Amino acid sequence: MSVKIIGLKSLPNIPWQDKPAGGKDVMWRYDENPIILRDQLKSSNSIFNSAVVPFGDKFAGVFRVDDRRRNMQLHAGVSDDAVKWDIEEERIEWINEDPKTAEANPWQYGYDPRVVFIEDRWWVTWCNSYEWKPTIGVGYTYDFKKFYQIENAFLPFNRNGVLFPRKINGKYVMFSRPSDSGHTPFGDMYISQSPDMKYWGEHRHVMGPRNGWEAKKIGAGPIPIETSEGWLCIYHGVLESCNGFVYSIGAAILDIDEPWKVKYRCNEYVLSPQKDYECWGDVPNVAFPCAALCDPDTGKLAIYYGCADTHVGLAFAQVDELIDYVKKHS
Amino acid sequence: MSVKIIGLKSLPNIPWQDKPAGGKDVMWRYDENPIILRDQLKSSNSIFNSAVVPFGDKFAGVFRVDDRRRNMQLHAGVSDDAVKWDIEEERIEWINEDPKTAEANPWQYGYDPRVVFIEDRWWVTWCNSYEWKPTIGVGYTYDFKKFYQIENAFLPFNRNGVLFPRKINGKYVMFSRPSDSGHTPFGDMYISQSPDMKYWGEHRHVMGPRNGWEAKKIGAGPIPIETSEGWLCIYHGVLESCNGFVYSIGAAILDIDEPWKVKYRCNEYVLSPQKDYECWGDVPNVAFPCAALCDPDTGKLAIYYGCADTHVGLAFAQVDELIDYVKKHS
Amino acid sequence: MSVKIIGLKSLPNIPWQDKPAGGKDVMWRYDENPIILRDQLKSSNSIFNSAVVPFGDKFAGVFRVDDRRRNMQLHAGVSDDAVKWDIEEERIEWINEDPKTAEANPWQYGYDPRVVFIEDRWWVTWCNSYEWKPTIGVGYTYDFKKFYQIENAFLPFNRNGVLFPRKINGKYVMFSRPSDSGHTPFGDMYISQSPDMKYWGEHRHVMGPRNGWEAKKIGAGPIPIETSEGWLCIYHGVLESCNGFVYSIGAAILDIDEPWKVKYRCNEYVLSPQKDYECWGDVPNVAFPCAALCDPDTGKLAIYYGCADTHVGLAFAQVDELIDYVKKHS
Amino acid sequence: MSVKIIGLKSLPNIPWQDKPAGGKDVMWRYDENPIILRDQLKSSNSIFNSAVVPFGDKFAGVFRVDDRRRNMQLHAGVSDDAVKWDIEEERIEWINEDPKTAEANPWQYGYDPRVVFIEDRWWVTWCNSYEWKPTIGVGYTYDFKKFYQIENAFLPFNRNGVLFPRKINGKYVMFSRPSDSGHTPFGDMYISQSPDMKYWGEHRHVMGPRNGWEAKKIGAGPIPIETSEGWLCIYHGVLESCNGFVYSIGAAILDIDEPWKVKYRCNEYVLSPQKDYECWGDVPNVAFPCAALCDPDTGKLAIYYGCADTHVGLAFAQVDELIDYVKKHS
Amino acid sequence: MSVKIIGLKSLPNIPWQDKPAGGKDVMWRYDENPIILRDQLKSSNSIFNSAVVPFGDKFAGVFRVDDRRRNMQLHAGVSDDAVKWDIEEERIEWINEDPKTAEANPWQYGYDPRVVFIEDRWWVTWCNSYEWKPTIGVGYTYDFKKFYQIENAFLPFNRNGVLFPRKINGKYVMFSRPSDSGHTPFGDMYISQSPDMKYWGEHRHVMGPRNGWEAKKIGAGPIPIETSEGWLCIYHGVLESCNGFVYSIGAAILDIDEPWKVKYRCNEYVLSPQKDYECWGDVPNVAFPCAALCDPDTGKLAIYYGCADTHVGLAFAQVDELIDYVKKHS
Amino acid sequence: MSVKIIGLKSLPNIPWQDKPAGGKDVMWRYDENPIILRDQLKSSNSIFNSAVVPFGDKFAGVFRVDDRRRNMQLHAGVSDDAVKWDIEEERIEWINEDPKTAEANPWQYGYDPRVVFIEDRWWVTWCNSYEWKPTIGVGYTYDFKKFYQIENAFLPFNRNGVLFPRKINGKYVMFSRPSDSGHTPFGDMYISQSPDMKYWGEHRHVMGPRNGWEAKKIGAGPIPIETSEGWLCIYHGVLESCNGFVYSIGAAILDIDEPWKVKYRCNEYVLSPQKDYECWGDVPNVAFPCAALCDPDTGKLAIYYGCADTHVGLAFAQVDELIDYVKKHS
Repeated sequence: MSVKIIGLKSLPNIPWQDKPAGGKDVMWRYDENPIILRDQLKSSNSIFNSAVVPFGDKFAGVFRVDDRRRNMQLHAGVSDDAVKWDIEEERIEWINEDPKTAEANPWQYGYDPRVVFIEDRWWVTWCNSYEWKPTIGVGYTYDFKKFYQIENAFLPFNRNGVLFPRKINGKYVMFSRPSDSGHTPFGDMYISQSPDMKYWGEHRHVMGPRNGWEAKKIGAGPIPIETSEGWLCIYHGVLESCNGFVYSIGAAILDIDEPWKVKYRCNEYVLSPQKDYECWGDVPNVAFPCAALCDPDTGKLAIYYGCADTHVGLAFAQVDELIDYVKKHS
Repeated sequence: MSVKIIGLKSLPNIPWQDKPAGGKDVMWRYDENPIILRDQLKSSNSIFNSAVVPFGDKFAGVFRVDDRRRNMQLHAGVSDDAVKWDIEEERIEWINEDPKTAEANPWQYGYDPRVVFIEDRWWVTWCNSYEWKPTIGVGYTYDFKKFYQIENAFLPFNRNGVLFPRKINGKYVMFSRPSDSGHTPFGDMYISQSPDMKYWGEHRHVMGPRNGWEAKKIGAGPIPIETSEGWLCIYHGVLESCNGFVYSIGAAILDIDEPWKVKYRCNEYVLSPQKDYECWGDVPNVAFPCAALCDPDTGKLAIYYGCADTHVGLAFAQVDELIDYVKKHS
Repeated sequence: MSVKIIGLKSLPNIPWQDKPAGGKDVMWRYDENPIILRDQLKSSNSIFNSAVVPFGDKFAGVFRVDDRRRNMQLHAGVSDDAVKWDIEEERIEWINEDPKTAEANPWQYGYDPRVVFIEDRWWVTWCNSYEWKPTIGVGYTYDFKKFYQIENAFLPFNRNGVLFPRKINGKYVMFSRPSDSGHTPFGDMYISQSPDMKYWGEHRHVMGPRNGWEAKKIGAGPIPIETSEGWLCIYHGVLESCNGFVYSIGAAILDIDEPWKVKYRCNEYVLSPQKDYECWGDVPNVAFPCAALCDPDTGKLAIYYGCADTHVGLAFAQVDELIDYVKKHS
Repeated sequence: MSVKIIGLKSLPNIPWQDKPAGGKDVMWRYDENPIILRDQLKSSNSIFNSAVVPFGDKFAGVFRVDDRRRNMQLHAGVSDDAVKWDIEEERIEWINEDPKTAEANPWQYGYDPRVVFIEDRWWVTWCNSYEWKPTIGVGYTYDFKKFYQIENAFLPFNRNGVLFPRKINGKYVMFSRPSDSGHTPFGDMYISQSPDMKYWGEHRHVMGPRNGWEAKKIGAGPIPIETSEGWLCIYHGVLESCNGFVYSIGAAILDIDEPWKVKYRCNEYVLSPQKDYECWGDVPNVAFPCAALCDPDTGKLAIYYGCADTHVGLAFAQVDELIDYVKKHS
Repeated sequence: MSVKIIGLKSLPNIPWQDKPAGGKDVMWRYDENPIILRDQLKSSNSIFNSAVVPFGDKFAGVFRVDDRRRNMQLHAGVSDDAVKWDIEEERIEWINEDPKTAEANPWQYGYDPRVVFIEDRWWVTWCNSYEWKPTIGVGYTYDFKKFYQIENAFLPFNRNGVLFPRKINGKYVMFSRPSDSGHTPFGDMYISQSPDMKYWGEHRHVMGPRNGWEAKKIGAGPIPIETSEGWLCIYHGVLESCNGFVYSIGAAILDIDEPWKVKYRCNEYVLSPQKDYECWGDVPNVAFPCAALCDPDTGKLAIYYGCADTHVGLAFAQVDELIDYVKKHS
Repeated sequence: MSVKIIGLKSLPNIPWQDKPAGGKDVMWRYDENPIILRDQLKSSNSIFNSAVVPFGDKFAGVFRVDDRRRNMQLHAGVSDDAVKWDIEEERIEWINEDPKTAEANPWQYGYDPRVVFIEDRWWVTWCNSYEWKPTIGVGYTYDFKKFYQIENAFLPFNRNGVLFPRKINGKYVMFSRPSDSGHTPFGDMYISQSPDMKYWGEHRHVMGPRNGWEAKKIGAGPIPIETSEGWLCIYHGVLESCNGFVYSIGAAILDIDEPWKVKYRCNEYVLSPQKDYECWGDVPNVAFPCAALCDPDTGKLAIYYGCADTHVGLAFAQVDELIDYVKKHS
């Protein structure tokens, strides 16, 4: 590989399928998609927009499960092969690390989680309800059994909080997407920084919408992947057609030390909703990436993305080919 | 059965399929859905949101038929088995019971009918155009051949008028859902009362939207079913996703004598649009119940619901199991 | 007078000023306007849109008083000359005629009252809050001291309920203006009928907006005045300019027996907000008529109208001249 | 044929399938639809809303190709049989006929082309970006290899510019649909005239929306076809349901010499989105006609229409039967 | 004067007041403003946004008069001193120059006129209703008694059509501001060209909104004035505050031969609504310029502007000082 | 005084007028209002929403000055008597304390400042443009000559950042009002905390809109005043009438140690726009408080508030009377 992937452990058991013969796309779908069906749990309406990570020699994850009330919940799960998932029937019960945060953290709803290992634990961020207004919830776990919640990172109204996988310049770094209280007709990606995961500042604007497939709003996706070319950042962009929204997947490369600086940004989507399970379901025309597994030795990349806000799908790419593609189309 | 169903005649010929083995849902679909296809009539664009009743030892109904102008019409129909329907090619021509109502009742459009037998005749309510504004039309028939129209029950803007199957405290009782003149971004269920089916008053608020699957608006569905536990009320609730509406089916149990008092309300939907014929069609993601057949001896319940504003679908439940479910999830 | 005024008692003490010399307008202002100032009461933010009537050989009224919370209240008041008003510091406490209505009638807000004597008592209608949604409240008084409330006339969302001063064809008759839950971007005048002031039906459309000064919405104003030419109906019409609304006063003449039939409708406003006390205040550009005194012997007419939702103003006209004007400009 | 088709050359090689046995529709689909798939080109996201014409003894066309940036481009293409199309991988590079127009014509985006032969060349019109605002672009070609662009016909904001196939009264004649800068919540069809294809005037209103399937907005479709009954004009109409838009195909017949006079207008759609490839895709529920081939000897008509803003579909009709149908349903 | 004014005749009788001592503004108000009051005519609700020109050794004009229906009309008027105006009580009756235009030109409404002498006659443009949609009406007069109407210049939706006072490169040149059908939340200035005042093309974008006082929309004002520095163009710009719009007056200088090229554009307004007669009236906070008189010998400039859509006001400037100011603040 | 004012130095030279004889209001206006006129500066369009403090034995302040471009700027000023102000003609040039913040702090616009002395310096907060989106800017000065800017406190979209005058529990405490990017149709008051004025967390909801005068949105006003009863917090509340917004002044008392706990909240406004200079101007109906001077010995309170977004006004109250009033009306 021409590109070096940094800070990740070997992952020989990453789920994988080679690109179909003659495939012209830089990202291709798993041929048994969707891998997690909407009704896998007894009480689930849908399972999508979820985060998975390597965990020991297996895999673990935090899953968005909308129940049949259409309440949005977070559930833990584990897997041997990262394709078949064993998801808990009960939602995560967050323990308040500090009893004083309890008053601000009564559980209301949570959705679109991301998970990342930093230093000594697995951090979880999600879109958290604070007095029924969306903001960025923050918690952690050591074992995917007990989960601890701390202060919300920001004021409402915010969504798509995504941590970087290590401190940069001694500070935790998080993407987020401030917007409004409703169905979010606008949104840019920002970066914020913190010495302690509790107090946040040094907010920096990263990118906003651009023409075409991402003209309406954008938001961070999986945990960024550190490479010799910069942070590989897979994200979602939204186009408003004359009859609704289309959520596609794009990619950009950010500066390692000042990640609010965009080095390359692919002007094409790398995957857009085209299959029936992406085009119809609870929300039409959505491909929404929330997690990525990556084997640094081979550059294999497995993207987990929500399909039509209904199921979880899996897609693949080669990191070096993807980075090359982003640079060529920047 | 632990629950007693009141006021209904035995209906041994109710259409029926047992719950699929291993089925976890309290309401399940007919496996040959949809039962009425959009183009069954020569001039029909779609047939959906329709009302059926037992009629002699057979069945009759009033059907919403949108023609190819996309004008909304009501047609009568009959059936031997309540699955295959013989629908009139021509729309119902309403006869004004009192010539003085004629000036207020020129036919413009009608949709989403409900039908119920009270005392001596079949009453029909529907969303009626009064000077091109929606309100609740009221009529009756003795034979599903001649149909008589009386005064509109309310001022515009109103929809989803649904009568109770008997007088309560000596008065006719009707649900309705006041809202605006357009595409109805809000709506609660109210009850109104009348000594004579002409003058209406004693309006009472019943329920409004709640979190989740019914957060945007709600409206009554089939004629309520009287039981020893209260009125079993199947209704529709609407969620606004980040890309459109989703119309699902829910259930509640109301007090027998003061039906504006909600005893139980299921916090989950009992059926939501998930099949292709519910997810796409003229209006995506719609399951809209307008009628129910019920056999009081066995508790078998057959729900007729519009699918994607395009076809008619059929679903089944057991009344006692459904009531139990509503109570448990209330 | 060429026009005969019907059903009103002589009112020699009607407040009056002759038309200014050279005045070209059919309705002219009192030269000491506004007659009631916003801060007349200890706790009043504003007093406007109010209803006055002859009462014995003096005058009485029900007044819209917004307090400094900007809550909308109704207060009683009396006057010797119908110009200087003695308004109660405390709001009207409605007594529920029937204890069963109490549950639907907890006081929340009330505004824009009208008052009329029919048969044996003074009826009051107003825009009443029912579960914080606007509808038409109905009450009565015999003495302007004790006030009794009965059932709301209609479902929400409704405003500008105005009774006719006698039964027509044995039924009470009321104007109203159904619209939405917000700031009412549309609205037509309807008539409804009732045998008993409790159950309402036989709803009829009367008039909608037209071009120009009344292009946005319209609503009934004072109690209609019966004349040999028909019901003289003074109402408000609203124009939406490129920077806000303008509320003006217009006039129409309706059929005596079928008052939903418009005989004449003046295509010009008869008074529009042009004075400083009409153009600025809590709500810019509002002249909103709610009451009229009329002396049948001389045809003198005194109109009480809200000014900029802040004060009460007084204007004058001659009934026969006004009717003549309406007919000429119809 | 009872109807005479005027001004068209024989087209014996028009693509064709007979109406299915028992088919009750006046327009029927090709049974191998869609004929052009979204990913036919290396970089295409979708190919739809395109224009084809006879060209020598073969066929040529201008195609709307949205690339994976979701930028909207125009590509040329040729075909032997008008079913399988060979579309250029590179977009059309417009040559400015007059260098002075270059400053107003930098390429930004273009979509929804139409093509027509008048006198000596093939004229192309499309929705053209002028400073990122939509207006009607105008160009021509002699060979579908070199394309020349001239002045935009109108000021922004305009779409759906469609030329008539010959001068009328010595002037070029064009349909267009002025509207706003966004997603076009309104739109009527107008006709404008020009002595020289550069300066336009004598604007005439033709038709606006009507009830039902075309209640929201309408716009011209293929080049009108001259017949002994008048100009046969196939167009699109849009209905706004309670959950999005539906784009259907309709037809009207216009006066030959004063084509802003509507002789007949079919009150039903002739084709609406009902197949899966019309109901879901990048934009749900769209059937959008942009071109028609017609053989004057047999009256065979082949309609090319965009499906769900994703693919190109093909449908058939008989001109005389279609005209008869329009007249009967007018 | 450092600046040469071109193409205008001496106008020694221009109305004038010197700048107040110590005045710091480049444009100052007439101290007896407003000069035309809203009720000057028998049936006028308001008179504003009007156009005046030198006419023989006196003055003539076309005035926007809204009658008491709030219909928008155009009236002719004359004046000896350009301050006191004698306005016709009856509106202009347009004569169709060519009977064939009559069908497109039934009078509906007209507003915001401009007047300019080119070659042999006085041309009038205004916002004209074409089937109740706004577009640019065009007419002319030789004597301000008989007025002739020709074709509308453009398709709807357009406003603020303003002609240049001479042909440029052999073509008539007009500003206009395409926008939507409602209250115009956006709008840029464009230039279009015509060989014959009937067919229009070669459309060029001139300027759009910018930060601050003109951030919402802009539109041309008086006829541009030709100077040795370029076309002096006075226009209006609109700011949307947190509580409504504010219409101010600005200025720019355009290239003589290619007037779509902006040489200088003043980043400050030159007059904004600050006086009571500008801040309140039928429309709050409007200063809207429609005409300018100019004496080329002295550089005196008299601006006529609508005040609060209610009255006409007059303001003054020195052309050379104004041009200097525009250049300094560009 | 029954109430003890804490932490403020004696201010014998506070500007003052006694309450008018017979005055019934708890807050009364200065009788020479407005004290700062819109055109006091050479280039000012308006001066309003400004912050003043005692400074030595005189006074200093930071002023919102909109220039004639209508750009929003901050200017420093000084005064001997706190009534006549000497404001700098040039805007404040912020010095970046840390060069690394410079990239996030290019000056774009700033408005609605507040100023408070904490520990060793004067802190300034304002609504700051960060990439043209509103957030809370933070800076400080020692002398009102040199001003230093640090990190923005929050992500966009935020306004009305107001610091408490001392640390609480060892942390800086700030009000703010997250909302959207436009004209802010909603907004609640929150409190955030920081150990270092750079990193912020522990966000707590304080109050939202309530019925009446503050039903639309609310935001903090002057620096809170510490008293023996709690923090006296004067704030603004907004009502949306049927024709625009009204900004009034209210008051609440918060817990000393947990200031997100509301002890008392006055259900009436204490001052609303009623004078001509408050009712009309650049923005109608605005009274917007940004600063308060207070003499702890006498309890005299002088409130500085923006009038119609045009001028600065001054009003007075007695702290103990005001607190008493808030408690009585809570």
